[in-house]
Amino acid sequence: MSWIDEKGPNNDIVLSSRIRLARNISDYPFPPVIGEDQAQEIISMVKAGLDLEFMDGEDNFDLLRIKDLSPIDRQVLVERHLASRDLMKQAKISALFVNEDQLVTIMVNEEDHIRLQGILPGFQLFEAWEMLDQIDDIVEGRLDYCFDSRLGYLTTCPTNVGTGLRASVMMHLPALTATKQITPVLQTISKIGLTARGLYGEGSEALGNIYQISNQITLGPSEEDIINNLLVASQRIFERERQAQEALLKVKGSQLEDVLWRALGTLSHARLLDLKEFMSLLSQLRLGVGLGMFSGIRVEDVNDLMILGQAGALKKRAQSNLDRDQISSARAKAVRAKIRAIMDK
Amino acid sequence: MSWIDEKGPNNDIVLSSRIRLARNISDYPFPPVIGEDQAQEIISMVKAGLDLEFMDGEDNFDLLRIKDLSPIDRQVLVERHLASRDLMKQAKISALFVNEDQLVTIMVNEEDHIRLQGILPGFQLFEAWEMLDQIDDIVEGRLDYCFDSRLGYLTTCPTNVGTGLRASVMMHLPALTATKQITPVLQTISKIGLTARGLYGEGSEALGNIYQISNQITLGPSEEDIINNLLVASQRIFERERQAQEALLKVKGSQLEDVLWRALGTLSHARLLDLKEFMSLLSQLRLGVGLGMFSGIRVEDVNDLMILGQAGALKKRAQSNLDRDQISSARAKAVRAKIRAIMDK
Repeated sequence: MSWIDEKGPNNDIVLSSRIRLARNISDYPFPPVIGEDQAQEIISMVKAGLDLEFMDGEDNFDLLRIKDLSPIDRQVLVERHLASRDLMKQAKISALFVNEDQLVTIMVNEEDHIRLQGILPGFQLFEAWEMLDQIDDIVEGRLDYCFDSRLGYLTTCPTNVGTGLRASVMMHLPALTATKQITPVLQTISKIGLTARGLYGEGSEALGNIYQISNQITLGPSEEDIINNLLVASQRIFERERQAQEALLKVKGSQLEDVLWRALGTLSHARLLDLKEFMSLLSQLRLGVGLGMFSGIRVEDVNDLMILGQAGALKKRAQSNLDRDQISSARAKAVRAKIRAIMDK
Repeated sequence: MSWIDEKGPNNDIVLSSRIRLARNISDYPFPPVIGEDQAQEIISMVKAGLDLEFMDGEDNFDLLRIKDLSPIDRQVLVERHLASRDLMKQAKISALFVNEDQLVTIMVNEEDHIRLQGILPGFQLFEAWEMLDQIDDIVEGRLDYCFDSRLGYLTTCPTNVGTGLRASVMMHLPALTATKQITPVLQTISKIGLTARGLYGEGSEALGNIYQISNQITLGPSEEDIINNLLVASQRIFERERQAQEALLKVKGSQLEDVLWRALGTLSHARLLDLKEFMSLLSQLRLGVGLGMFSGIRVEDVNDLMILGQAGALKKRAQSNLDRDQISSARAKAVRAKIRAIMDK
């Protein structure tokens, strides 16, 4: 269970809603300059706090020390949006707590001492916030956070000071992209303190027409206002995407249907799939599922396909490193098998 | 049963072998200037001769008067290579005899009074010749053919005088085409009295990498020599195509496999297929079948797909005229259903 394979509201367009809180502990150097022993102490403190709270073991957290993980396992965690690439880069000092349903993770000694993340499928920003706020209270109850009464939470990077909150929605916007409305839309949101990035964060291309939209401002407004600002803007984008999809269907219904069915045909038959084409075909598949074109395929199946087709997941499955061509071939094979399994259900 | 769905030697590359004999009856004007009554007499004479011979009804011929056929039925006969477009153009005077297994047809009042055709699946030129020669003897026994002791059979067009024989093989040459060896190959055969045309004869494009190779010379050599000349040349082309296919498979096996499987994916999923793309996808499918890539699909299934996807067959199935877009849609639908049926076998 995770945000990937659980149903969420409007998750054909809004893949997930995510809240991240940056926190640091008083009297310890910030991670860029922390020593290994002190880093270890912080991991232990977070663990102790979580253990006390979740001692019944029902919803407990697994502790993963990054240095103990293989490069492939690290990649898989990033691909599932459970941890950041930066966490993996400082494997000597970093750790990851993951709760059982993989909806809450705590990165320790990434850019900040603690980064709590809550991620839910579909359009559930406030639900993700409520879920994470409870965890934050628990962790905060056991630790002494760096907090300035005027500024709020203090963070390594000044862009996170204040609430330390980054809220984001991962949106699939194929029709706005196809009709070239996406550029003005993204220009508009930058004027209201929001920013858009690709599937895997800063600097990543908007592969498969997937955009992460998040707040840039953390200082000043309250957590609720930050989230609400994002919610309102992303609801507008959601509505515009839905309208653009309906308009496409109305104006070129049969051509659109043809293109989307062909995508399914290619996904279920190709022997080689590079990432870019794969993500583009998945975008078409997701659009078709959203438009009710493919009975038997759910949005969550498309998420599953997306995650199992990433390089790390494919290497994990092969239990070995793969070169570029082997990845294309393994991706095509895994995708075919998965689609067959979905269709046979 | 017909050349389409019956197995023949090497029919992944050689779709069919065909012999055509042009004959005319003494004391009647040639078809371009024949009157309707006289044309009718010729039809009756051929019918009488066939009826006497095949009175047991086991392998009898159906008589189709072209004027009684709908435009769609006429188109279907052309698509199945049972009659020519020219026969349909002079519907007032023309008729077609078709034997039960559709391997022998007799066009009456096309360019000549009588054109006998024998067509067999795969590489069977001499077998087709023997089959047709028997029918020719039967018809000739009842009629007085225009025959000149020096020239041989007399025909409307001087290019057919002599044997009146046109032998042809329909070849699928995707690898020679892909590797651009096809142009020199076709240039070479023109030097030895052979010519190459597309799937539907003179002036038709080599859609789907299908070429009809036939003799240009009818006067001088014997029937056996004409056929043998074509057989030797087309065997060479066959071998070169086979080698080119094997080389492609060796050098770019996985890319080739990918392309061919994608063709199956598109054929089985597309909602719109225009003729050109359809024929090109079928060419890839046929190549894949020939290379043993698709278990469960036979070359004859590819022939079936090719014929059912032609415009006339689609109109016949829809029982109505269809415009261009409707044909694309009907083609995609019929192809999907057929592939599903093949796969379910």
